[in-house]
Amino acid sequence: MYRIKIISIGKNKESWLKTALSEYEKRLTGLMQIQWLLKKKDSDLKKTVLEEKKFHCLDPNGISYTSEGFSKLITQNASITLVIGGALGIDDTIKTKAQSLISLSPLTFTHQHTRLILLEQLYRAIEIHKGSDYHK
Amino acid sequence: MYRIKIISIGKNKESWLKTALSEYEKRLTGLMQIQWLLKKKDSDLKKTVLEEKKFHCLDPNGISYTSEGFSKLITQNASITLVIGGALGIDDTIKTKAQSLISLSPLTFTHQHTRLILLEQLYRAIEIHKGSDYHK
Repeated sequence: MYRIKIISIGKNKESWLKTALSEYEKRLTGLMQIQWLLKKKDSDLKKTVLEEKKFHCLDPNGISYTSEGFSKLITQNASITLVIGGALGIDDTIKTKAQSLISLSPLTFTHQHTRLILLEQLYRAIEIHKGSDYHK
Repeated sequence: MYRIKIISIGKNKESWLKTALSEYEKRLTGLMQIQWLLKKKDSDLKKTVLEEKKFHCLDPNGISYTSEGFSKLITQNASITLVIGGALGIDDTIKTKAQSLISLSPLTFTHQHTRLILLEQLYRAIEIHKGSDYHK
């Protein structure tokens, strides 16, 4: 089973987001273990991230992936840590220590919405790896 | 007020999606009028799209935009028609008649999820144009 740790800012304020995230987490049961570390402030996020040995940052200026490429990145590792910044993005100190910067899109998304997009891509990554019908 | 027509496949099956879409539509009240034309089948979509004089297609192989660039595209036109394909993508006959192909990301999203991402970007487009704090 893959283990994904996601470090981010904020709470699930919006109920639709909570529902959507839990739906994808349900689908991932037994396939991928998602651990959310949600911090209140950028300074708390920084402290938590810098305690990790290895991590990737989500950043609009990072490397672009197709869903197939993202699937390879995810399924080549038994465990991976991903960082989603808050409204002000991710601190440079964090970025320079990251294994890589990953771009989900050149568009800017809210960081809450990014969590949903990421979770759907993680589910898609597994389905691509399995060769299922989910990703046509 | 901007008028956006979105032609797509499917219904709002998932309740979280309904809630999320209606939240952004509420925010857009008075700024942008969103008209959804949701078709049951690809053939119905094709017929409806080809009745339009001008339209853009959302396609992973299309032109990439930053949110700022997308804002310009949207706010330069009083009205615009956007097509989101179904699970099998958009028919080539439709694509060749499109004004342009727009890519939201090289990643593949579900077409239902694409509707939410698009709606958030339309709201963001307006806020960027207004110079508000929404897009930092």
